[in-house]
Amino acid sequence: MNEQVIVTGASGFVGRCIVKALLVRGVGVRLLVRDPARAAALFPARGVELVEIEDLFTASVETLQTALAGGGMLVHAAWYAEPGQYLDSTRNLVCLTGSLHLAEAFVAAGGRRFVGVGSCAEYDPTPGHLGIHTPLRPQTLYGACKASTYQVLEQLLPGAGVEFAWCRPFYLYGEGEDPRRLVAYLHARLAAGLPVDLGSGEQVRDYLDVERAGEMIAEVALGGRCGAFNICSGRGQSVRQIAERVADGYGRRDLLRFGARPDNPQDPPCIIGVLEET
Amino acid sequence: MNEQVIVTGASGFVGRCIVKALLVRGVGVRLLVRDPARAAALFPARGVELVEIEDLFTASVETLQTALAGGGMLVHAAWYAEPGQYLDSTRNLVCLTGSLHLAEAFVAAGGRRFVGVGSCAEYDPTPGHLGIHTPLRPQTLYGACKASTYQVLEQLLPGAGVEFAWCRPFYLYGEGEDPRRLVAYLHARLAAGLPVDLGSGEQVRDYLDVERAGEMIAEVALGGRCGAFNICSGRGQSVRQIAERVADGYGRRDLLRFGARPDNPQDPPCIIGVLEET
Repeated sequence: MNEQVIVTGASGFVGRCIVKALLVRGVGVRLLVRDPARAAALFPARGVELVEIEDLFTASVETLQTALAGGGMLVHAAWYAEPGQYLDSTRNLVCLTGSLHLAEAFVAAGGRRFVGVGSCAEYDPTPGHLGIHTPLRPQTLYGACKASTYQVLEQLLPGAGVEFAWCRPFYLYGEGEDPRRLVAYLHARLAAGLPVDLGSGEQVRDYLDVERAGEMIAEVALGGRCGAFNICSGRGQSVRQIAERVADGYGRRDLLRFGARPDNPQDPPCIIGVLEET
Repeated sequence: MNEQVIVTGASGFVGRCIVKALLVRGVGVRLLVRDPARAAALFPARGVELVEIEDLFTASVETLQTALAGGGMLVHAAWYAEPGQYLDSTRNLVCLTGSLHLAEAFVAAGGRRFVGVGSCAEYDPTPGHLGIHTPLRPQTLYGACKASTYQVLEQLLPGAGVEFAWCRPFYLYGEGEDPRRLVAYLHARLAAGLPVDLGSGEQVRDYLDVERAGEMIAEVALGGRCGAFNICSGRGQSVRQIAERVADGYGRRDLLRFGARPDNPQDPPCIIGVLEET
């Protein structure tokens, strides 16, 4: 029988895909959730244990240790991710400090393997093609707090005899996407026959279906390797390509208004993840 | 009249030299200290206000805001620094989270300029010559928590309208040095006529008198520039050179036993700071 995996952030955009991928692989999960009723509706499958924690990031050491008791593996996907807010919010600091407390509680509870979810926003974006050896030089508070969590846990956990793997998703889209994010926004506007105001569309990004991201993170978790992993396609697509592909599904390229919004000059022109050989 | 500067860690090795340098420059200070009697003995000068805080890093937001009230500039030098312990101690996590809380309280109190003390241990040591644009890739929990404090505050403070400068001392020695550190240990052994067991002595480090470090940090604080600053000599000296120079003061090179201890293969061969042009 497979070892049960504890998961935080299971109701979130990427978290729910991680849980699905674990369940598909026959792995039982214990989900630390704020709202057990919501989680039960999301995951009606067998093999799902629900533990209610009102606020994971400010929970007491005792609460965390009880929730983690007996667990060998933890996949920590919870983080503040409100679109339009999360890049600069001071709630990132609460997520950072709370994640460190969680990791310390996991060590104290005798955990064996900790798998965290970071972001491509940790990297120095300048090189354009970003591999796991690209220096970290975050440009946002979100990226700084993710990078800090990684840096501290990279020292703390191996030093305490706990395996540590860290997954950095690039640009995710797909089922469960918040309607304020690009691809979901495109679908909503185009389905309603409404025009879509966009920037130049020239920015190149590494887009990946969130379902595939969940599978990749589950595979990192269930594999034995440690260190950082890019969760990406390894291919760049321009925002124009993405938008036209979505629009083609509705036969409505005419609704795309490139140049209707100014580009943010601080946005890097190109962010493509480098997939490491396995 | 000069603006009063608030200082944490004023009783520490580098903190006390920062305070001295500020006082010499005619700047009044408010010291947040655990032990006011000890601080009063260290700084009998006029222009020193003492505020007792039992534990800076776990103090409540209210306590911090009261202590910081009306202060325009904060020099944050407090950190856990017990020789032989500090590189791997989980107390670094408390210093990281406490420093972030302190910065948030400083923002809330209307502070204008925050000056932090980091470490050369934040850098990727591989290049040997380390400038402020050298990637951060800390190799210890201490370095990771210092680098994380920098990365988060670099995003948080300018975003909140607060100036942010960050000073990275290299290898400091001098008055007030803990007897377990290299130069103080050399003096203690040689003064007693006892042999000194050393490694190969071939490691090259950037050594700086702590008094000069205090002056450099005070100058960064009182200057108007923001960003990261190396606090270093810009010159490398081997451990052998340092040891022989100290031994020459006692006429006892014969007591130096190079090779009596194994070198730590993880210690980088060369750490020299690059001084930026001002």
